[in-house]
Amino acid sequence: MSSHTIKIYRNLMGANERWAGKTRRLLKQKNILMLNLIGSPGAGKTLLLERTVRPLSRRLRFAVLEGDVATTRDAERLAKLHCQVSQLLTGGSCHLQAKMVYHAIRDLPLDKLDLLIVENVGNLVCPAEFDIGEHAKVAVLSIAEGEDKPLKYPSLFRTARAVVLTKLDLLPHLKFDLPACRTYLRQVNAALPVFPVSSVTGRGLKPWIRWLEECRASVGGS
Amino acid sequence: MSSHTIKIYRNLMGANERWAGKTRRLLKQKNILMLNLIGSPGAGKTLLLERTVRPLSRRLRFAVLEGDVATTRDAERLAKLHCQVSQLLTGGSCHLQAKMVYHAIRDLPLDKLDLLIVENVGNLVCPAEFDIGEHAKVAVLSIAEGEDKPLKYPSLFRTARAVVLTKLDLLPHLKFDLPACRTYLRQVNAALPVFPVSSVTGRGLKPWIRWLEECRASVGGS
Repeated sequence: MSSHTIKIYRNLMGANERWAGKTRRLLKQKNILMLNLIGSPGAGKTLLLERTVRPLSRRLRFAVLEGDVATTRDAERLAKLHCQVSQLLTGGSCHLQAKMVYHAIRDLPLDKLDLLIVENVGNLVCPAEFDIGEHAKVAVLSIAEGEDKPLKYPSLFRTARAVVLTKLDLLPHLKFDLPACRTYLRQVNAALPVFPVSSVTGRGLKPWIRWLEECRASVGGS
Repeated sequence: MSSHTIKIYRNLMGANERWAGKTRRLLKQKNILMLNLIGSPGAGKTLLLERTVRPLSRRLRFAVLEGDVATTRDAERLAKLHCQVSQLLTGGSCHLQAKMVYHAIRDLPLDKLDLLIVENVGNLVCPAEFDIGEHAKVAVLSIAEGEDKPLKYPSLFRTARAVVLTKLDLLPHLKFDLPACRTYLRQVNAALPVFPVSSVTGRGLKPWIRWLEECRASVGGS
């Protein structure tokens, strides 16, 4: 009987899911909640985190993983606020892959953390398709992008556990139809809580911070 | 001597480039210029086209291919203006593929066209990586996205032949640093012409229309 060597090529998505599974087990073991923030380039994800750091650090111990195609600008912005932050550079890839996220998490002081927030690459399409082991996806949509985006890019909004509507301070200067946006969001995902915020004025930040705390509490209790 | 059947799997990108090549040959044969508009969701690509239709239709015969993940909203907006438009739905894919574009072009009355404008899926990353047979990519960046985007998403800006900076009317309400944005664009692509426009007020549209005409003329003369 001869022996044969058979090469097996797994699809990339399968490999991604294995790494996401490793992350999930690690987070469970360490009792840490992980959220995956997803939105277009310039949706205001980093500014939202900048405004979140101070009030949240009084309540929870957390770290941020900053995903970007290029540059360390976003991580530097958060580091200035004494936020624990790591920069994940995809080198051209349009989304964070679970393997890179897992290794970044492994390097953190996990026994001293309650919450991990991942800011994914600025992209409303691809990051929604790739599991990184998070407990929940959070959609970040700037009102400057227009009220129809939940219908035009339904995948993220269908799977997200919450949506933050950013740049509310621009409302008087835009033709953005907030009630229509809420209707479209309900059409795509009836149970989705919506947090309209302005990171410039601070409006709406409190309910968002409270939601983060509640999310964390629900994971800790499970 | 025994015969063997060997299966060959070409990578998808290779297949994409074959279809892009077919499109390029067809466009050359019919003497049509094709531009590929790329920008984030809500960057103002469709509104720019809405404002472009009337002045451009006095000068050139053109059609638009609207690329979207879902819905026919954008094509309907342009059809209302009596613009010749086709809707290309990717059904989840984050970019237009060359094969779909080729088949859509084949269905157009090519002998009656000078220019084709493709509005790609709203995404600053992936569409820049996939050739659809266009003569040139045009980057569309809303100033609401922030001045650092050319550095953070360099791939598109490196390969684009022009950049349209949209939503200029919001400048008084944003912390957008226009000179810094121009510097970043030059760092990434020194020769890139920049067209700051407001599709709301009409400011800056004339140089953009003129550029489209000049582009068309340069292809027609080659």
